[in-house]
Amino acid sequence: MNTPAAGANAAAETLSEEAVDALGRAHATATATPPHRHDALLSERAANIKQSAVRDVFEISMQPGLVSLAGGNPYLQSLPLERLGATAAAIIAEHGLEALQYGGGQGTLELRTQICEVMAAEGIPDADPENVVITAGSQSAQDVAAKVFCNPGDVILLEDPTYVGALNTFEAYEVDVQPVAGDGHGIIPSLLRERIAALQAAGKRIKLLYTIPNFNNPSGVMLAPERRQEIVDICREANILVVEDNPYGLLKFDGVLPAPLRAANPEDVLYLGSFSKIFAPGLRIGWALVPAHLKQRYYLASEAVTLCPPTFNQMLVSDYLRNYDWMGQISTYRKLYEERCTALLAALDEFMPDGVTWTRPEGGFFVWLTLPEGIDTYPLLYKGIDAGVVFVPGAAFSAAEGPSNKLRLAFSAVPPESLREGVRRLAPVLAEAIAAN
Amino acid sequence: MNTPAAGANAAAETLSEEAVDALGRAHATATATPPHRHDALLSERAANIKQSAVRDVFEISMQPGLVSLAGGNPYLQSLPLERLGATAAAIIAEHGLEALQYGGGQGTLELRTQICEVMAAEGIPDADPENVVITAGSQSAQDVAAKVFCNPGDVILLEDPTYVGALNTFEAYEVDVQPVAGDGHGIIPSLLRERIAALQAAGKRIKLLYTIPNFNNPSGVMLAPERRQEIVDICREANILVVEDNPYGLLKFDGVLPAPLRAANPEDVLYLGSFSKIFAPGLRIGWALVPAHLKQRYYLASEAVTLCPPTFNQMLVSDYLRNYDWMGQISTYRKLYEERCTALLAALDEFMPDGVTWTRPEGGFFVWLTLPEGIDTYPLLYKGIDAGVVFVPGAAFSAAEGPSNKLRLAFSAVPPESLREGVRRLAPVLAEAIAAN
Repeated sequence: MNTPAAGANAAAETLSEEAVDALGRAHATATATPPHRHDALLSERAANIKQSAVRDVFEISMQPGLVSLAGGNPYLQSLPLERLGATAAAIIAEHGLEALQYGGGQGTLELRTQICEVMAAEGIPDADPENVVITAGSQSAQDVAAKVFCNPGDVILLEDPTYVGALNTFEAYEVDVQPVAGDGHGIIPSLLRERIAALQAAGKRIKLLYTIPNFNNPSGVMLAPERRQEIVDICREANILVVEDNPYGLLKFDGVLPAPLRAANPEDVLYLGSFSKIFAPGLRIGWALVPAHLKQRYYLASEAVTLCPPTFNQMLVSDYLRNYDWMGQISTYRKLYEERCTALLAALDEFMPDGVTWTRPEGGFFVWLTLPEGIDTYPLLYKGIDAGVVFVPGAAFSAAEGPSNKLRLAFSAVPPESLREGVRRLAPVLAEAIAAN
Repeated sequence: MNTPAAGANAAAETLSEEAVDALGRAHATATATPPHRHDALLSERAANIKQSAVRDVFEISMQPGLVSLAGGNPYLQSLPLERLGATAAAIIAEHGLEALQYGGGQGTLELRTQICEVMAAEGIPDADPENVVITAGSQSAQDVAAKVFCNPGDVILLEDPTYVGALNTFEAYEVDVQPVAGDGHGIIPSLLRERIAALQAAGKRIKLLYTIPNFNNPSGVMLAPERRQEIVDICREANILVVEDNPYGLLKFDGVLPAPLRAANPEDVLYLGSFSKIFAPGLRIGWALVPAHLKQRYYLASEAVTLCPPTFNQMLVSDYLRNYDWMGQISTYRKLYEERCTALLAALDEFMPDGVTWTRPEGGFFVWLTLPEGIDTYPLLYKGIDAGVVFVPGAAFSAAEGPSNKLRLAFSAVPPESLREGVRRLAPVLAEAIAAN
């Protein structure tokens, strides 16, 4: 799918008109539809629910011949598919009456117990299965967090850039998403303190700080270990709950994992985890580790959204954690993603024109490029497609409206040689934009 | 699990204290937790998110020795589990890279196309896959409907009684749920018209009518075919969107299925379907057929909640619809559920004391009992458990607060001889309550 095509223009021609149309719509903040008497029925929040540019780029990146550096898909080819198939078969044949039936709203006790072992590997040794709520991916856990905590107009602080899916989810609750400044080591505590003070002085109610401390999507940045406790302390003082989203924590290429914000702060951090990056996103199994005093509220809200997580999927994940070398698989992933990241960085070093800078992640799936001020990366997307390469323009990842001079490259799903080819195709597009700036 | 126990009291003794505690909590409208500084962080809607009595009864009904007439679980024993296991194995082994990966937010085109065939069997011949959005069960489809249409205080009209999960979901959006009077043939059009006029005169904004026209959960009532178009017409005139939830439509025991409200009214009905009753609830796959002019809004809101439905589960359902005799399986279910319903009704005729009346459903999973005015069925639940039988008290299914003289019996998961035993155990409990009334 991501094999370099001989002729990039030929590849671009394979794009359907609808796909390009969809991409055009993605840039618009509102979808243009003719007026209808039902418009009066729409909720106020409905106006805030936007098309995700990433999701449409995802469709486009499936087109043959293009090198897609767009989608943050995990590389599943190294999973033992035959054996997993046999496991799924045994679950249905031997335990089908349970696997295919309704289950408890919080998720199975077995999987919640195993998730505590996964969290121990992530640096949280004391999690109690009683406080784990299994969700439809960690996206759904974000949705439930907004549901439980945010009235319209309440503030959620977040990194800029941050995960586009979280932005969309929070904005669907009419949340006022407010960026906090950071640098190559994540959120800067003193600036967080200032931002909170300024927002509170302006009469804002700040409810949550949403952060991806490990290998942020899209920036790849890791929050410095020495800043972590201070950030929680600042939030505790201001009575702000920290929502720590940690899907990439175990995918640190090398060395010791820094302790999660949750580790020493069980009361002040709502911790979100996911099997999407360390096992299989197509099962849609994530979780929240909820402070004990908030667990019941969170669990009931989750139940009100999906009734219960899929039993079969939970049993498949349970078997995978029980009977497979899942930590060995993660070691495989670490090596694989490090190799790809290294290849991408080498290609950027080789091909990128002056004026472009980028992050050098120690884990995760993404590298974040910055172009000179004044360049909008959105129109470059079309030029990239013409050149046979797809990326995600930076504007998608920001709470701020308006153009962005940033873009995201994902290395997770692309072999090293294709990464190099993609960057080779991208370089002249960026060089031309810089020359014209 | 539902085998009659020799000694009912012995059976009741096997109930864990926690389970009975949980049941006690279920009756409380608010969960008692000590105050915490984070209480100030809770959203206004969080106060509206309640424990579902049905879910806790569901846990209790798993206790050995009890006859559970509580849970509306489909009877999965007649599914070809060995073969389904082999199908799941083949999907992962041969298409694992797709099945275990992220997919499109609207669901796969293959399954959306097949869902249109299912809806054709349900009486909607003209559905377009483009307007189908696959959701995490139809519960999630209800959640998205409330998200897209309802501001706090907006009204959703619904049957009284109605599905407890929908009540919980709507109340989580601070919706003002307002019952509409009906009889043994469903909503009465003239009373619907009056209710709308009265609510509008009181300044209420009515957004949706939520209805389960076929074999309502919990009442088992089917909306009379001759009332259907009038109800849609009344709603259209008042600019109210109809949300038609039809999980049981294909489970009419006998005779012709009445046309869904959606059939002749593609613009005015949001139609919800589910594989939970005709295939497997543990896969959590439902759908919405959305009026074309509202599709984009609905789809984006759904994506903001769960990103995408589980790919593997969709592929398993697709294979089931493609390669299995799914209509034959539904015929099997119809016969099976009719047999059970008949057995339950016969046992009621045999054992119930004077003063108890009940519905005689033509399909679905449930029979609805009415006791004399003045009796609260909630405390009878404990007495039922002591006698070795579990049911769901009626209050759970009503938008109104306060006690209810109704209760729900589910026949779907229980063999005929156990249904009779359950009713035999229940009868003296009700007789005693009537005598004391």
